[in-house]
Amino acid sequence: MAVIVECIPNISEGRRPEIVREIAAAVGASAPTVRVLDVSSDAEHNRSVLTLAGDPAGLAAGVLALFARTLDVVDLRAHRGEHPRMGAVDVVPFVPIEGVTMAECVALARTVGGQVASRFGVPVYLYEEASENPARKNLEDIRRGEFEGLAAKMATPGWAPDFGPAAPHPSAGASAIGARMPLIAYNINLATDRLEVAKKIAAAVRHSSGGLRFVKAMGVMLEARGIVQVSMNLTNFEKTPVPRVFEFVKREAARYGVNVLESEVVGLVPQAALIATAEYYLQLEGFSGSQVLETKLREG
Amino acid sequence: MAVIVECIPNISEGRRPEIVREIAAAVGASAPTVRVLDVSSDAEHNRSVLTLAGDPAGLAAGVLALFARTLDVVDLRAHRGEHPRMGAVDVVPFVPIEGVTMAECVALARTVGGQVASRFGVPVYLYEEASENPARKNLEDIRRGEFEGLAAKMATPGWAPDFGPAAPHPSAGASAIGARMPLIAYNINLATDRLEVAKKIAAAVRHSSGGLRFVKAMGVMLEARGIVQVSMNLTNFEKTPVPRVFEFVKREAARYGVNVLESEVVGLVPQAALIATAEYYLQLEGFSGSQVLETKLREG
Repeated sequence: MAVIVECIPNISEGRRPEIVREIAAAVGASAPTVRVLDVSSDAEHNRSVLTLAGDPAGLAAGVLALFARTLDVVDLRAHRGEHPRMGAVDVVPFVPIEGVTMAECVALARTVGGQVASRFGVPVYLYEEASENPARKNLEDIRRGEFEGLAAKMATPGWAPDFGPAAPHPSAGASAIGARMPLIAYNINLATDRLEVAKKIAAAVRHSSGGLRFVKAMGVMLEARGIVQVSMNLTNFEKTPVPRVFEFVKREAARYGVNVLESEVVGLVPQAALIATAEYYLQLEGFSGSQVLETKLREG
Repeated sequence: MAVIVECIPNISEGRRPEIVREIAAAVGASAPTVRVLDVSSDAEHNRSVLTLAGDPAGLAAGVLALFARTLDVVDLRAHRGEHPRMGAVDVVPFVPIEGVTMAECVALARTVGGQVASRFGVPVYLYEEASENPARKNLEDIRRGEFEGLAAKMATPGWAPDFGPAAPHPSAGASAIGARMPLIAYNINLATDRLEVAKKIAAAVRHSSGGLRFVKAMGVMLEARGIVQVSMNLTNFEKTPVPRVFEFVKREAARYGVNVLESEVVGLVPQAALIATAEYYLQLEGFSGSQVLETKLREG
């Protein structure tokens, strides 16, 4: 079985396309097993997101190449943009996709974090699953204060980095490197124009206000269609599965006399989330991902 | 996107493993794009089933290599076995898996059928989707009478082959070559030991006695567990989807006061059938197979 890890580095450069292309090319050339699937730049944010896939050793080489090129050409002292950031290479998550465990992605984040610190002198904070400190799992907490507040923050108790020096790199700040599950962007459209219903359901289903552990949600109006939507991010589809979220929202909607019109997945969804949905509703027992014909044919 | 066709030739040799290995090796060596995923022999049936995957051109070369080797070593005049058969190479279905349409598999079956007839002098009957004759779609109808009755059958009106001579090949009989959808072997277990309930539900759901168009079903007892099962083959999951079959059986079971305990997929299932199940229950709109993360990562 193929081992596939996804890695989505965010770098603080989104206004010089030729520079971003150079960085992506350096990553692609770093190891034969690394593929650069996508590069998206946002000039307002002055930030680019690379989507990489590969095996752990290849991705480690790719991320080190990314740091080497990015540190040469990005200086946060002169960086302006709308998106919060604390590093030239701001955040590097590793995501287990196939033939690999979360524990292996955590180990990969730690290995790469140590190498980044020792090779480039950049302080590294582990985050999400790679962090053992509950106060330092959430990326927003780690990044609060941004590059400009970093020196002061790093001097306060509890904010020594996991790897590297106790002060920011002069031009590159600090980096967050971690491991997390794939996100699923999942929306449920309701057969009503009552925005308050979508907002109440979002509040009921999301973790932060009492709902399901791995759901972020908000209620929004779809003006063009005259209907409302519960717009969600599912941050761990293994522990909070899609069908449970759907049934939860359907039940809450019924409580307001509202029907579910449809749901939608935005962007990519792991095959395992689809399999889990079939297992849930079909009461499937003993099913394995290796029974998927396409998977078998690719492996054979 | 990769083009993957599956091909599952059935040959009338299941008692001489070394011969079967030689045939499989010849198929595997016929084209670099052909893979032999599985070879299963049954001595009682005196029959072997090969599972091949590849692109159309590779599979065409593979099937011709299969005929060449099999005709050298199998003589139906001396063949005995429990399974019905009319040819040394008895049946060759092509199944569209990925990046390929049923129409392309039909065209492949016709091309290969013509080549088999002209190169080996074996009469070829097109079947299932590859046949335009309603009386000659069903393999059982084409094969009825078997090798021993073939000369007489071929002489009767309506039974001239689609390709090749109007009489059987002396040692190799005739072959059925066609295109069909992937089969799904799907069972639903009921929380009862009343076999008559499973039999009544099987009769209700299967096509032959008034049920759904692409379902074959029987009711069986699972002695060891003391429960009964509706055991099914779903022959076209696009037109008769798995969730509709499940809901049908659940509804029929309720009519007898019986609950569904669980369901199971035996062997392989196309990813599209799982996606269709998620779409059905989650009321998903606008979803595409290219949104499956693993598919995207493999293509990237």
